[in-house]
Amino acid sequence: MHVLWKDKIVERDTVKIDIEDRAYQYGDGLYEAMRVYNSKMYMFDEHFDRLDRCAKEIRLDLPFTRAELKANLEKLIAVESIKEGEVYLQVSRGVKSPRDHHLPLPGTVEPVLTANVITIERDVEAQEKGHTSCIVQDQRWLHCNIKSLSLLGNVLSLNEAVEKGYDDALLVRDGYFTEASASNLWFVIDGKLRTHEDGNLVLPGITKIKLREIAKSLGLEVVEKAVPVTMLDQVEECFASNSVHEVMPIVEIDGKPVRDGKRGPITKLLQDKYIEATL
Amino acid sequence: MHVLWKDKIVERDTVKIDIEDRAYQYGDGLYEAMRVYNSKMYMFDEHFDRLDRCAKEIRLDLPFTRAELKANLEKLIAVESIKEGEVYLQVSRGVKSPRDHHLPLPGTVEPVLTANVITIERDVEAQEKGHTSCIVQDQRWLHCNIKSLSLLGNVLSLNEAVEKGYDDALLVRDGYFTEASASNLWFVIDGKLRTHEDGNLVLPGITKIKLREIAKSLGLEVVEKAVPVTMLDQVEECFASNSVHEVMPIVEIDGKPVRDGKRGPITKLLQDKYIEATL
Repeated sequence: MHVLWKDKIVERDTVKIDIEDRAYQYGDGLYEAMRVYNSKMYMFDEHFDRLDRCAKEIRLDLPFTRAELKANLEKLIAVESIKEGEVYLQVSRGVKSPRDHHLPLPGTVEPVLTANVITIERDVEAQEKGHTSCIVQDQRWLHCNIKSLSLLGNVLSLNEAVEKGYDDALLVRDGYFTEASASNLWFVIDGKLRTHEDGNLVLPGITKIKLREIAKSLGLEVVEKAVPVTMLDQVEECFASNSVHEVMPIVEIDGKPVRDGKRGPITKLLQDKYIEATL
Repeated sequence: MHVLWKDKIVERDTVKIDIEDRAYQYGDGLYEAMRVYNSKMYMFDEHFDRLDRCAKEIRLDLPFTRAELKANLEKLIAVESIKEGEVYLQVSRGVKSPRDHHLPLPGTVEPVLTANVITIERDVEAQEKGHTSCIVQDQRWLHCNIKSLSLLGNVLSLNEAVEKGYDDALLVRDGYFTEASASNLWFVIDGKLRTHEDGNLVLPGITKIKLREIAKSLGLEVVEKAVPVTMLDQVEECFASNSVHEVMPIVEIDGKPVRDGKRGPITKLLQDKYIEATL
């Protein structure tokens, strides 16, 4: 298996991460996960835009241009002969010794890019059956719009749901739904789509961008405004969206079915249209 | 330079961290930083207790016993001939491929311990002169009592202060001081010590434990109750405490001196007694 390491495609096992790499010691870095359809990265530019914006927010100088990253990832996909898959890439701030909370001065450390690509298939069964979920208090930091490697908050949220026997966690902060544990969260209420507005409490999802476009083309109204937990009994459909799982129905919340506990018609329509857009 | 890697003392450059180590991809792990005085670790048991408690909270099975860790770190200190120094250790949840937010099932991955020890000297000058600081909104997660590797929130808080020209950030959540960017925060108000109560908003510091004991022996009252920013003009002294920097005076907050802008007498007394306790 080959991976991209800095600007080279190398055998996975030749990569050597330093014990004082800041991603290892501080979760100090960023990541993106993209789908590959028919050997092509989907919405690469939108992913790069987000990475670039996040890099500025955390004062990390990306060690590649958009074109360089794209070309290297395309090479990796070709070398690995991936047709349907997932690209995972992360950029660490780099190696700093001795360890120190202070950000290294610009130019004194070299950020470390690592990326791999694996084959994945659409989980058609799960996309039909949907996920069960429970409400978990959103205890993550207040920069959820930064796609950082400091992910333990997300990991623990998901685990809280798994320990209770559910597939995913629906995060709630101050009484309002924010996201699922690793995806944007959508509701259908009164025939309209509702999702949390962009801002520091949620990640501005790339799949969310595409779903906005699809909704518009379908004449479906999208209201970007946080949904309070108190509106739960008005929810007609619920789903989560991210690049890897695309549109995933949420059919149960805290042991209660969402309506009839089956994937709803608007969810199904958006799933179909999303898949169409990836062809 | 030698480091401890899993249960072996090896040359630093032979350690190989995997690209899918969960500390590298998720900040999924824990750490401790301890001082070494006269070739001995200071308050090892208290550090181990905290590590053990945090490990339970994040469902990580420590791959060593207290005695094994202590013996290996003592060996490392001896091999490196450290007299006055700092031990840094971290435990990652381990390597999981393919990457997945779900916690691996117990027993399926092997946690990865890495530790190093370096010589450091007490910064007597800084301990006299003190640090300047500014107030920064505490935007970290709500598990600040877990000493996790997902530290980007702390790093960005410190950097916000540094970019404004200050030495450290005093974090404020909902109008109350919580901590400094990597240490507990103390005030002297009306002749009494005040610091944030333990709980999910602050790390229960090991130095804090020792300072409680010292204060008691001096007959100094310690009130563990968050200080609101609105009480700032009643603050007589301010200092931060952690294992590495011990007791550090905060002499300026947001450009205004704390009293006369010099290390206060109670701060000085606690510094002296703390150093005495390390001998």
